[in-house]
Amino acid sequence: MIQYNHPVRVYYRDVDKMNIVYYSRYFEMFEEARTELLRSIGLDVTELENSGTTLPVVEAHAEYKRGAGFEEELVVRTSIPELPKGKLRIEYEVLKENELLVSGFTQHAFTNSDGKPVRAPEMILTVMREYF
Amino acid sequence: MIQYNHPVRVYYRDVDKMNIVYYSRYFEMFEEARTELLRSIGLDVTELENSGTTLPVVEAHAEYKRGAGFEEELVVRTSIPELPKGKLRIEYEVLKENELLVSGFTQHAFTNSDGKPVRAPEMILTVMREYF
Amino acid sequence: MIQYNHPVRVYYRDVDKMNIVYYSRYFEMFEEARTELLRSIGLDVTELENSGTTLPVVEAHAEYKRGAGFEEELVVRTSIPELPKGKLRIEYEVLKENELLVSGFTQHAFTNSDGKPVRAPEMILTVMREYF
Amino acid sequence: MIQYNHPVRVYYRDVDKMNIVYYSRYFEMFEEARTELLRSIGLDVTELENSGTTLPVVEAHAEYKRGAGFEEELVVRTSIPELPKGKLRIEYEVLKENELLVSGFTQHAFTNSDGKPVRAPEMILTVMREYF
Repeated sequence: MIQYNHPVRVYYRDVDKMNIVYYSRYFEMFEEARTELLRSIGLDVTELENSGTTLPVVEAHAEYKRGAGFEEELVVRTSIPELPKGKLRIEYEVLKENELLVSGFTQHAFTNSDGKPVRAPEMILTVMREYF
Repeated sequence: MIQYNHPVRVYYRDVDKMNIVYYSRYFEMFEEARTELLRSIGLDVTELENSGTTLPVVEAHAEYKRGAGFEEELVVRTSIPELPKGKLRIEYEVLKENELLVSGFTQHAFTNSDGKPVRAPEMILTVMREYF
Repeated sequence: MIQYNHPVRVYYRDVDKMNIVYYSRYFEMFEEARTELLRSIGLDVTELENSGTTLPVVEAHAEYKRGAGFEEELVVRTSIPELPKGKLRIEYEVLKENELLVSGFTQHAFTNSDGKPVRAPEMILTVMREYF
Repeated sequence: MIQYNHPVRVYYRDVDKMNIVYYSRYFEMFEEARTELLRSIGLDVTELENSGTTLPVVEAHAEYKRGAGFEEELVVRTSIPELPKGKLRIEYEVLKENELLVSGFTQHAFTNSDGKPVRAPEMILTVMREYF
C-alpha cells in the first residue's frame, strides 16, 4: 500500500453558512492530497502528462460523518490500496485529531495523448511496485 | 418521482487546463439544481431551515463519462426517485444535447435545530407525496 | 455604452460562515456576466479565441458595500463604458432589488495567438461601434 | 511593517483552460496568506471573532502580470504597511522564484458584534504596534 498524510487548514473560502466545509471542497482537498502522494513517490503529474499519460477522474465518492470548521487543521490520509491495472483507485480519510470526518475515493483512468484509455503505463507500475 | 431539468452554462471558472469541467464543480451544479428542484415543488430551503430542518449532505457520488468544455450548455436532470424516510436521495444526470456526460447522486440527512438526525418532517412529506 | 443585466442566484457554495457571499465569488459572477454581455452583442468568446484573440484579465477590482445571502436573487449590471483601445474595461454593479451591494471593474488586454498584447481587433471594434 | 511569506502550490482546481491560475483564485490565496500572517503575529481570526471583532473585506484589488501554471510553487508575500486606523490594508505580491506575477491589496473594516464599523480594537493595535 502507498500512503501519504497531507495536512490542510480550513479557511473562510471553504466553509458555508453552517461554518462547515462545503461538501465539494473535500474533492479539491483530495486532488491536492493525491498530487502530493504521487510526488512523494517520485511521480510528478506534469511529467506524466508531458510523457503522454493523463489520469482523468472517472468516479468520485465521499461520505460525510462530521463537519470541519474555519481554521481547523485537518489531515487527508491518502492511500493507493493496490497496484493499478485498468484504473487507479485512490482512497482518502479526512481526520481532525484522529477523528474521522470524511472518507472517500476517486477512480482514475489512464489515457494516452489521444485521450484513449490505456492500461497502467509500465513507468508508473515500476515506481509503484516497490510499495506492494 | 419528482424531476427537474436545470440548465447551466460552463464558464472559464469551471474548466481545468484540459478545457473540461473540473470534477468537483459538478457537485456545485448539483447543489444549484437540487435547490431549484425543491423550489419547483414549493420547498424553499431557507424556509425549511428557518422552520428548524436542515438537509446536510451525508454522501456524494459522481461518475464521469465525458467532459464538458467552456461555453457549452448543459442540463442537470435532477430527480428524487422515492419518498424519503430517514434520508433523502437525489439523483443527477448532466446532459449535453441528450448525451450523458456525468451521473451522480447525493444523500441528505434531515437534522433538527440541535443538529440531531430526525425522520423526514411531515411538512416535506406532504408536499412530496403528490408526486409519488 | 454597452449594458447587460445578468441575473444570478446565491447558493450554499457561494456563502461563508457569516452567510454572505465570499468576496472572490463576485469575480466568478463578473466572468459569467461579461461572457453573457459579449454574447448579447454577438461576440462569442470561444469564436474570438478560435480566431486568435484572447482577453486575459490584467486588473480586477471590487468594493463591497453590503453582503448577499443564501437564495437571494441578484442582478449583475454589466457595462462597457467606452470603445476599447489598448485595453477593454468592463464595469459591474451587483444589485439586490435596486440596492447596490458590490461594484467593481475588470481590465482586459487583447492578446494574439502568441500571447503578445495587440490593439483591439477590428472585428471586435466593428461590433462595438454600433453602441457608442 | 508586518510581513509574512506564505507558500502555495497550484493544482488542477486552480487553473483554467489556458493552464494559468484563474483570476479569482488569487483572492482565495490572499485570504489564506493573510490568515497566516495574522496567526504569525499571534492574532487568531477565530479568537478575534469570538471576542466580537470581525474583519470583513470592503475592497479587493489585483493586477495580473504573468500567469502561474499547474504544480508551480508560489510565494504570497503579504504585508501590513501601516498601523490600521479605521481600516486595515493588507498588500500581496505573488512571486515565482522572485518574479512578480500578481500584486494586489485588500481593505478590511473592523466591525463589532452588531456588524457596525468601529475603530481598530486596542487589542489588535497593541499586538501590531511592536512591528512599526
